Amino acid sequence: MFESAELGHAIDKHIFETQVPVLREALLEAQYELKQQARFPVLILINGVEGAGKGETVKLLHEWMDPRLIQVSTFDWPTDEELARPPAWRYWRQLPPKGRMGIFFGNWYSQMLHNRVEGNIDNTELDQLIDRSMVMEQMLCDEGALIFKFWFHLSKRQMNARLKELKDDPLHSWRISPLDWKQSKIYDRFVRHGARVVQRSSRDFAPWYVIEGVDHYYRSLSVGRILLDGLQAALKTQQRRVPQPHTAPLVSSLNQKRLLDSLNLTQSLEKSLYNQLLAAEQARLASLMRDKRMKKHALVAAFEGNDAAGKGSAIRRVAAALDPRQYRIVPIGAPTDEERAQPYLWRFWRHIPPLGRFSIFDRSWYGRVLVERVEELIDPADWLRAYSEINDFEESLTRSGVVLLKFWLAIDQDTQYQRFKKREEIPFKRFKITEDDWRNREKWDAYIDAVEDMVERTSTDKVPWILVEANDKRFARVKVLRALNDALEKAFEKD
Amino acid sequence: MFESAELGHAIDKHIFETQVPVLREALLEAQYELKQQARFPVLILINGVEGAGKGETVKLLHEWMDPRLIQVSTFDWPTDEELARPPAWRYWRQLPPKGRMGIFFGNWYSQMLHNRVEGNIDNTELDQLIDRSMVMEQMLCDEGALIFKFWFHLSKRQMNARLKELKDDPLHSWRISPLDWKQSKIYDRFVRHGARVVQRSSRDFAPWYVIEGVDHYYRSLSVGRILLDGLQAALKTQQRRVPQPHTAPLVSSLNQKRLLDSLNLTQSLEKSLYNQLLAAEQARLASLMRDKRMKKHALVAAFEGNDAAGKGSAIRRVAAALDPRQYRIVPIGAPTDEERAQPYLWRFWRHIPPLGRFSIFDRSWYGRVLVERVEELIDPADWLRAYSEINDFEESLTRSGVVLLKFWLAIDQDTQYQRFKKREEIPFKRFKITEDDWRNREKWDAYIDAVEDMVERTSTDKVPWILVEANDKRFARVKVLRALNDALEKAFEKD
Repeated sequence: MFESAELGHAIDKHIFETQVPVLREALLEAQYELKQQARFPVLILINGVEGAGKGETVKLLHEWMDPRLIQVSTFDWPTDEELARPPAWRYWRQLPPKGRMGIFFGNWYSQMLHNRVEGNIDNTELDQLIDRSMVMEQMLCDEGALIFKFWFHLSKRQMNARLKELKDDPLHSWRISPLDWKQSKIYDRFVRHGARVVQRSSRDFAPWYVIEGVDHYYRSLSVGRILLDGLQAALKTQQRRVPQPHTAPLVSSLNQKRLLDSLNLTQSLEKSLYNQLLAAEQARLASLMRDKRMKKHALVAAFEGNDAAGKGSAIRRVAAALDPRQYRIVPIGAPTDEERAQPYLWRFWRHIPPLGRFSIFDRSWYGRVLVERVEELIDPADWLRAYSEINDFEESLTRSGVVLLKFWLAIDQDTQYQRFKKREEIPFKRFKITEDDWRNREKWDAYIDAVEDMVERTSTDKVPWILVEANDKRFARVKVLRALNDALEKAFEKD
Repeated sequence: MFESAELGHAIDKHIFETQVPVLREALLEAQYELKQQARFPVLILINGVEGAGKGETVKLLHEWMDPRLIQVSTFDWPTDEELARPPAWRYWRQLPPKGRMGIFFGNWYSQMLHNRVEGNIDNTELDQLIDRSMVMEQMLCDEGALIFKFWFHLSKRQMNARLKELKDDPLHSWRISPLDWKQSKIYDRFVRHGARVVQRSSRDFAPWYVIEGVDHYYRSLSVGRILLDGLQAALKTQQRRVPQPHTAPLVSSLNQKRLLDSLNLTQSLEKSLYNQLLAAEQARLASLMRDKRMKKHALVAAFEGNDAAGKGSAIRRVAAALDPRQYRIVPIGAPTDEERAQPYLWRFWRHIPPLGRFSIFDRSWYGRVLVERVEELIDPADWLRAYSEINDFEESLTRSGVVLLKFWLAIDQDTQYQRFKKREEIPFKRFKITEDDWRNREKWDAYIDAVEDMVERTSTDKVPWILVEANDKRFARVKVLRALNDALEKAFEKD
C-alpha cells in the first residue's frame, strides 16, 4: 500500500519556491469561489504516521489559504456530552457548512486505528467500522460534500530520523507530544492496520491520497495540488453530482394490495376504559423512564401521520406522563439557513438526546420521502437514496443503545375532513389549519403512495414502523404509549 | 417576604374546573400568537422550596399549552464543555429563540442559593451574583425578552406535610428525589437567603411572583393567569419596549481633539527587522499557548479596523504561530436566521473558546456600535445601551480567566484608497473589494465618530482598546502579536 511513499520523494527548494505563489493564488481563488457558490462543503481528513508532517501541512494550508474559511476540528478525547450520544454525533456537530472547508484532524479513521492497534477490536470489527464509514462518506458525498482523505506516510527509518531531528531542533520541539514518541514503538502495527483501512476505504467518491512525508517541499506541494485540482473540478461542475437512481418504479406503486388499506380504522376505545388504560400506560412510562437501566439508553420517537391524525395530541399524552426535564419535543418545520447549509440529516442529529433522555420528533427525517418527494422539492434521486440513508441513520442510533420508535398515525379521508372543519370553528385551533392543509389533502393519493413506499423500505427489524389506527384518538394514544413501553421494557430485558 | 405565601391560599376545585378550560384556550391562543409574531422569546424561571409544586406546575403548563413550543432546560451539574467556559455560557446556549417559550428549571438563582446555603459564598458575594443577574436580565429584556420569575413557597410545616403526603402516595413517589428530602433540613437557611435573593432581584422589567404552593388549584391557576396576563400585554404592545436613551450627545462628538488623530501612522518597520521581530513574537506566542498555565485560561481576540486596514493579514500572522488545533477564526458577517432569533450577543457567546483555546474574531460584537450604528440598522437606543452591555459581556469573560484583547487597526484615507485600488487589480484579491467598501468609504467621518465613541466608552481597565497604527502592515502585525504575548504573560504571572 505504502511502498511508493517510501521512495524518498523530494523536490527542489527552488522549484517549490517558484510554484508556491502560483499555487497559493489559485487556491485562494478557488476558496473564495467556493464561498460565493456556497453549494457544497469541503471535508479534509488528515491521517497517517506521526512525524510525517500532518500538523505542519495543516498549518501550511492555513498560511496559503484564507484561514477564516477553514475550520479545524480535533477529535481526541470525547467530551461527556459526546460520550452520552452515538459515536457519530461528535463528527456531525463539527461538519463544515456549504461554502466552507473543514479539516478533521483525528477522525473516525484515527479512532478505529487506535482501537485496532491497541487490540480493543479485531479485524472483523475493524472492517465493520470501515464499512460504516463508507456509508457515512457516501451519504456526505451524495449530499454534495467534497471529501479529501490524506494519509501521510514515512518508512520506519524515516520516522525515527524525523522524530530525532525534530527533537534536536529547539525551535520545533513544542510540536511533539509524548504520544508522538509512543507511535514509534507501534509503527509496524499502525502501518499494517493503516494499510488495511486505506485499501478498504478508498472509493471513487472519496479516495485516499497517500503522501510521502519525508520531504517538506514534496509533501506540501503534493497536498496543495491535489486540493486545487479537486476544488477546481468540483467548482466547475455546475451541477451537483446526482447519483443515478435505479430507474425501475418502486414496488408498492404497482401493488394493488395496500398496507394502509389493511388497517382496521374502526378500532376504538370507550371513554372510561380509555381513561383507565391511559393512566396505566402513563404510569408505566413514568416508571420506565425513572428506571436505572434507562441510564444506558436514550429514547427517540418520531411521529408522522396524515394531517389532523392527532400527532400533537398523542405527543401531549406521552409528555403528560413525564417530568418535563426528561424529554424534549422537536417540532420539524422548514429548516433554518444553518440547517440548509448542511446535509439533511444534520438537523436531526443535533437533537439526538443524551443517555437517559427522550426526544420526541413531531414530524421527522421522513419528511424527505414524504413532503419533499410529493411536493417535488428535491430530485427523485435524492429521495430514492434517502431510504437507505435513513436506515443507516437509525441503525447508528440503535447500535448505541438508543431505543427508537416511529409511528404512522393513519386516518381516513372522511375523518380528516371532519377534523379540518372542526379546527376552523374552534378559535384556538384555527392556527392548526392552513391553506396548505387543504392543498395537501388534494394530494391524498400521492401521499399514500409515498407512505406505502416509505413503510416498505424503512420498516426494519430493529425499527419497524408502528402503524397506528387513529380514527379514534383514544385508541391511537393508548397504542402509542403501549408501544413505547413495550420497546423500553424489551431493551431493558436485553441489558 | 414570603409571609403572604404562608396563609394557606386555596381555591375551590369547582372554580378551578370551570376556569381552566377558558384559561387554557387563552394560553394556547397567546402561544400561537407568540409564535406567529416571532418578535420576542419568553423565559420562565422556576425557583423555590422543594415540594411546593415546581415540577408539577411545569408539567401542567405543558399539558395546558402546546408543549412543542416550550423547551425546558435544567441546569444541575455542568457538563465538562460547560465547565471549560464562563458560567453564563450554559444559559446562553439554552436561550429560547424569538417566538418560543423556555423554562429554566434550575438557573442562576438556584446556583447562587445553593452556594449560599452550603456556605461556599457569603452575603457580599451573593449580592454580587444578584447584581450580575440583574445586568443579564436587563439586557435580555432590552433585547425584547419577556421574563417571568416564579418562586414557589411553602411554610416549613406545609413542606413537611407535603413531603410526607407525597411519600405515602405510591403513585407519586417517583417524583421525589433524595435531594428533596435534604431540603427539609435546610429549610430555614434556604428561605432566609431566598428572601434576600427575591427581594434584591425583583425589578420592573423582571419581577418575581411568589406563589404559595400548598394548594394545587390555587397554585396552578395563579401561575396560569400571571403568564396569560403578561403574554397578552406583551403581544398587544406592537412596539418593543425601547428603553429611553439619555438624550445628551456623546462626549467625543463634541471633542475636537480626537484619539485617532493622535496616532502616529507613519510608524513603520524595515523588512529585515520585521522578519526578525515577527519570528520572535510568533515563537513567543507558540510557547505561551503551550504553557501549562494556559490550561486555566482561554484567549479571545477581537479584530476591528478600517476596511483594508489589514485585519486579515494580521490574523494570518497570529495564526501562523500556532497549531491550527489551538485556535478558531470566527469571521463575523451577516447573522444567520438562528442568530437573528436571539439577543445580539448570542452569536458571540456560542464561539467563546474552552480553556486552553483561542478564538479570533474577525470583526466582532463591536459591529453593534459601528456598522449597525452608522448604517442605521438599529434604533439609537439599541446601540447606546450596547456600550455597557458589551462592557458587561467582556467582564464576564475576563472574570472567568479569559484573556481578552481588542484591536483597532487604523489607517488613513489615502492608504485605504491605495489598498482598494490594488485589490481591484489583483485577481485573487478582487473578492475582498466590493461596492459596499467604496460606499463605506464615503461615510469615513461617521465611522470615525463611531470609533471614537466606542473607544471612549468601552476601553476598560481590564480590556483596553489597543489602537494599532496600520499604515505600515509590518508595524501593525508585530504590535498585535506583542500585545497578545504581553497579555498572556501578564495573566500567567498573576496565577
